[in-house]
Amino acid sequence: MKVKIISLAMILSFASSNAFAKEFVLIDNEQGISTGNWSISNKDTSVKAPAFTVQNAVLTGGKQAGSEVITITSGGFVIKLSPTRGMGILSVEGDGVRMGWDSPVNEVVNPANINLESRGGIGWLEGFNEMMVRCGFEWTGHAVEADGMMYTLHGNAGNTPVSKLIVDVKDTAPYTITVKGLIKEKTFKKSNLETWASLSYVPGARSFTVHDVVTNQGDYERDYQIIYHSNFGMPILEQDAQFIAPVKEISPFNDYAKEGLKTWQTYLGPTKGFDEMVFNIYPYGDDKNQTKVMVANKTGDKGAGIEFNLDQLPVLSLWKNTDTLKQGYVTGLEPGTSFAYPVTIEREQQRVRKLAPGQSVEFTLTYRLLAGKKAVDDYKNQIKTIQGDQLTTVVEEPMAYE
Amino acid sequence: MKVKIISLAMILSFASSNAFAKEFVLIDNEQGISTGNWSISNKDTSVKAPAFTVQNAVLTGGKQAGSEVITITSGGFVIKLSPTRGMGILSVEGDGVRMGWDSPVNEVVNPANINLESRGGIGWLEGFNEMMVRCGFEWTGHAVEADGMMYTLHGNAGNTPVSKLIVDVKDTAPYTITVKGLIKEKTFKKSNLETWASLSYVPGARSFTVHDVVTNQGDYERDYQIIYHSNFGMPILEQDAQFIAPVKEISPFNDYAKEGLKTWQTYLGPTKGFDEMVFNIYPYGDDKNQTKVMVANKTGDKGAGIEFNLDQLPVLSLWKNTDTLKQGYVTGLEPGTSFAYPVTIEREQQRVRKLAPGQSVEFTLTYRLLAGKKAVDDYKNQIKTIQGDQLTTVVEEPMAYE
Amino acid sequence: MKVKIISLAMILSFASSNAFAKEFVLIDNEQGISTGNWSISNKDTSVKAPAFTVQNAVLTGGKQAGSEVITITSGGFVIKLSPTRGMGILSVEGDGVRMGWDSPVNEVVNPANINLESRGGIGWLEGFNEMMVRCGFEWTGHAVEADGMMYTLHGNAGNTPVSKLIVDVKDTAPYTITVKGLIKEKTFKKSNLETWASLSYVPGARSFTVHDVVTNQGDYERDYQIIYHSNFGMPILEQDAQFIAPVKEISPFNDYAKEGLKTWQTYLGPTKGFDEMVFNIYPYGDDKNQTKVMVANKTGDKGAGIEFNLDQLPVLSLWKNTDTLKQGYVTGLEPGTSFAYPVTIEREQQRVRKLAPGQSVEFTLTYRLLAGKKAVDDYKNQIKTIQGDQLTTVVEEPMAYE
Repeated sequence: MKVKIISLAMILSFASSNAFAKEFVLIDNEQGISTGNWSISNKDTSVKAPAFTVQNAVLTGGKQAGSEVITITSGGFVIKLSPTRGMGILSVEGDGVRMGWDSPVNEVVNPANINLESRGGIGWLEGFNEMMVRCGFEWTGHAVEADGMMYTLHGNAGNTPVSKLIVDVKDTAPYTITVKGLIKEKTFKKSNLETWASLSYVPGARSFTVHDVVTNQGDYERDYQIIYHSNFGMPILEQDAQFIAPVKEISPFNDYAKEGLKTWQTYLGPTKGFDEMVFNIYPYGDDKNQTKVMVANKTGDKGAGIEFNLDQLPVLSLWKNTDTLKQGYVTGLEPGTSFAYPVTIEREQQRVRKLAPGQSVEFTLTYRLLAGKKAVDDYKNQIKTIQGDQLTTVVEEPMAYE
Repeated sequence: MKVKIISLAMILSFASSNAFAKEFVLIDNEQGISTGNWSISNKDTSVKAPAFTVQNAVLTGGKQAGSEVITITSGGFVIKLSPTRGMGILSVEGDGVRMGWDSPVNEVVNPANINLESRGGIGWLEGFNEMMVRCGFEWTGHAVEADGMMYTLHGNAGNTPVSKLIVDVKDTAPYTITVKGLIKEKTFKKSNLETWASLSYVPGARSFTVHDVVTNQGDYERDYQIIYHSNFGMPILEQDAQFIAPVKEISPFNDYAKEGLKTWQTYLGPTKGFDEMVFNIYPYGDDKNQTKVMVANKTGDKGAGIEFNLDQLPVLSLWKNTDTLKQGYVTGLEPGTSFAYPVTIEREQQRVRKLAPGQSVEFTLTYRLLAGKKAVDDYKNQIKTIQGDQLTTVVEEPMAYE
Repeated sequence: MKVKIISLAMILSFASSNAFAKEFVLIDNEQGISTGNWSISNKDTSVKAPAFTVQNAVLTGGKQAGSEVITITSGGFVIKLSPTRGMGILSVEGDGVRMGWDSPVNEVVNPANINLESRGGIGWLEGFNEMMVRCGFEWTGHAVEADGMMYTLHGNAGNTPVSKLIVDVKDTAPYTITVKGLIKEKTFKKSNLETWASLSYVPGARSFTVHDVVTNQGDYERDYQIIYHSNFGMPILEQDAQFIAPVKEISPFNDYAKEGLKTWQTYLGPTKGFDEMVFNIYPYGDDKNQTKVMVANKTGDKGAGIEFNLDQLPVLSLWKNTDTLKQGYVTGLEPGTSFAYPVTIEREQQRVRKLAPGQSVEFTLTYRLLAGKKAVDDYKNQIKTIQGDQLTTVVEEPMAYE
């Protein structure tokens, strides 16, 4: 009498030719697939690929019960991301460097256990601990009550479990592994956005690429916003750690950040009572509008870099949350279409973009773990090349007040 | 050490005599039963019954993960309903006709993933895609803040997973299949309603009956309201599709609907920018106060009819949401105790009913899929008979303003 | 391809020496353990222990689906508690006496299905049916909007599933069984509390001990509050049932409770329209500041007693909810750091305590089921001894108004 829904897609993927790629469907809301605990290694895909594993684990306990986490490992490099939390990247480690941070929230909180409207619209903070969380796409920024509703802090995407989840491994060099998930932000009359959010990694590499395609599946033009909230703590962040970016203009987010304007290029150590300072940055790009930003430790042998395109993501929020270790000692380098002001201000200042019916927009960011002085210096030099002899304007006044 | 709770009820149901019926307990919160993926067919019940299958499937992926869907099929007729979403009917198909519609919300969203208070009390729209969703029973109608709380859009029943779920198949002709679920709306000091919500179907038929029994299990008189929000899109709905009902009085829901008063009997095609028009209707009934309403396509060979009793459900909301296809091209024929105004207005205008302690009230609606000109014409004629030569009053002004 | 995460901790616990204790890890968020349905008995632990069973069951159906319930039985004594609902104690029964009550909420509602902010911040009432529920620890008391947020009724702990769950059985007399769970109240920038909440029971006994250790894991001083909301209905509560405590001072919670000041020591039978009366009590303690409070039926052969320490829990709320049986006929004896006023008032009147960074605070309460006249009289006499000839001050005016 019991009927087990068998994952035909998985069977088919194995039966398929070895010629180009192997695609593993881990979640499919239409085909009734949910693989749960699962893993593959290079042995399951290609005899020639370098050693790697991709594992999916269903977490247990507390508010994280049922959350899934994908772990990709290769040559001592470990990437963790959660399809349940909008494909957010939890942490990346390798060569003694960690991209990520230690939030007091030390579980991968299942969104079913979060009320984004709680605490005056900042329930998002009950789950926030990712190295990279997508803040968007219907809206982003600080919480604000407007239009008869609460625009909750940083939107819904980061707390949306994916409707489809696919692991794709290429059979030919460089044997790229891609994990992609479908995030639906759909509400009758209000929103019809679909985002394929992916992470691609070449086994053995120390970098990976995030590539998102956001599509307005509706018949009406819709606003969208995105901030790639990318967060780094110890061991990269420390006293006198450096923020390096080709900066065209920097301004304080609010009055409190004015005090930090003179030292925006360096960090304090863990500082009780510091809370957070945010700076709004317009970066320079190269001739293709590509730019790179980075954070490195004091001695310059541990760092993290992000490369992105200014046509896609024209602004960067620099979030310095150099409070105590247990409070969350962390800096955010946040490429975005918007700054972190409430949507009301972002609209007013015309940073909220629109998607026509059927239109897609894509975002590509390459994250690089920088281990060793050479890796850090190389990245630094690439940033210097972009800056060239172009000046940095330091604006003393915030562009808006909440 | 591991203990598996075995479904004794299921074993017993099989062991029981074939004389009258077979009852399958799929969910029982008291006995610890949750069958999950499951199916039966006529072969499991009676040798003489026409071919049918009843299947329960646990969905996966995204915000629908864990939602269950019952599918009843017989002779090309397919009914889908979700016990997880308050026994809401997702769609009914047969003979090339579909009762149901295409919402941008294309998952069976698990209520655990919906915050009904979000977006100013209209989180209900994040899950709305049913052919029929129960809007009630503690309250219904548009969201309103009153009495120190938010009365969220259309109440809780449609987002309440059932505490018990029973499939009952009669062993004697006409071998009626009944699926019934127990919806609890219980809050200490506030609400103590229990509703047995059922759908009965005779194998081979093109109609089915919804029968709900709402009981006030508390010691205090309690308000209740219900709107059977029944929704139809393509292929029934199209340009010049017809709404047919024995109408005693029709009035616009608001000022915008005034423009549509002259053409209330027909529909526009998908119309960008139309949004929605709602009309408040008092139908005529026959000598037993039974009435029938229907929607049919332009040529009159595809339609859907609903029969109900005006003592139980005295009013009908006609919802014309003839916006674009992707926005949700749909009309609602909504028998109710109330119109769709906020509970505050419904109270003021005395359409909110009361249940005494221990009192039950029942609602019976028969939905009919109309395939072919004859079926449509027959239903139309039955409606004409009810109307007879009684006049329709068109009231120009809304009865209330939100 | 499928990988099952095996519970190493459980294997190890069995392999370990029999010398002192057996520890069974049922849930561990870090090790990926979630045992689900499970049970042990004295046979699994020690040949000499008196007969007992400890069982964990995963509930099904409705809003309780996925909730877990631990049942401890020994010699006709049955304790039920839910790790999913913050280790709340559902009921305790033995010798014809029941500690607990009949709430209209007759499921063990999974917190994933509760929005604590609903109904104006009193969504907590949608799950309230425990014999003892922890109201805290970040805040407690009546809902209030302040500081730009909603402090929801009685805080989050009671609706927080535990991140770790351990059953520990001593191998030597008296073979104490301890069930302990880890409750995390963590929100970035806002809260970093961890509570090990435990219940210890000696097989065969008619009492058990609740022992909680709350730790501020953050780097900032934080407020905390706790009310051990302990609730008793039939058969202990009845007309002329008695509340007995060594009372130093009693005052009405609000104007309505003034009417009940003269009869605070006895109860009404189920009384339609009574709703609830609350009294604020400062108890006397013995020379170690230990105190005892109790409720007993009219004839004094069925009762429940709670022993606690006034340094830990200086105040007692007496909640008389002697409304009808179906509305919830129940009294609460609620030792706390605070009364049930909103946190704003509790702060003003300086009953909100603080935890320094890294600091822990502990609470110990011993609950005793009193079956038979002797047991009741003994407990009563112990209370009388504490009161001695010390006077009870009856304050006529509430100490605060909401």
